[in-house]
Amino acid sequence: MIKHFHFSEVEEKSVEAFGSTETTIRVFISEDEAPNFIMRRFEIKPLGQIGVHFHNWEHEIFILNGEIVLISENGDREKVSSGEFVFIPPNEPHGYVNEGNETVAFICMIPKQKK
Amino acid sequence: MIKHFHFSEVEEKSVEAFGSTETTIRVFISEDEAPNFIMRRFEIKPLGQIGVHFHNWEHEIFILNGEIVLISENGDREKVSSGEFVFIPPNEPHGYVNEGNETVAFICMIPKQKK
Repeated sequence: MIKHFHFSEVEEKSVEAFGSTETTIRVFISEDEAPNFIMRRFEIKPLGQIGVHFHNWEHEIFILNGEIVLISENGDREKVSSGEFVFIPPNEPHGYVNEGNETVAFICMIPKQKK
Repeated sequence: MIKHFHFSEVEEKSVEAFGSTETTIRVFISEDEAPNFIMRRFEIKPLGQIGVHFHNWEHEIFILNGEIVLISENGDREKVSSGEFVFIPPNEPHGYVNEGNETVAFICMIPKQKK
């Protein structure tokens, strides 16, 4: 059955892993329901971060609001902004820091069956 | 390698299938590059549509701008708006009509290996 609902109706959970701060996640549909991939919406408040980490699955991201500093291998820093797509391949170190004044929101997809 | 770019840098292609009108698609990364799923961004201008169709894979959608009428089985109509998630399971008929004054944009994910 088709279903739809506003993201604000989804439970917002704090993200604690990887030294993350001021960060929340909403998971659109549960792993049980999703046939192939999971859609999540993250928010990172000003001065918040998701610490650098890596894993053997990819991310495909779309930035909804704000500007975030993407930290990659060797501490490289790049700004990514609202309207940008981001592809993070498997095993690439990545983290995010919000150095702006605005809450950053983004959609981040992961495969259901992490390899 | 991590990559990122603004959606406007991606080639915009007209969608013609299913009697679609005033609709375009931008495909974030090619099927060759994506390990598991494909992220696309659609735009439907006012009075445009994607005709009703179905297939044996799912969609996970996030509405970025505007309000769209989602047509489902038996011609059922539901409005979905900016900030909403939509899940369309495999084999469910679905189509979209933009009856508003604003261009609708949404992210729509599909699995890479359509079952």
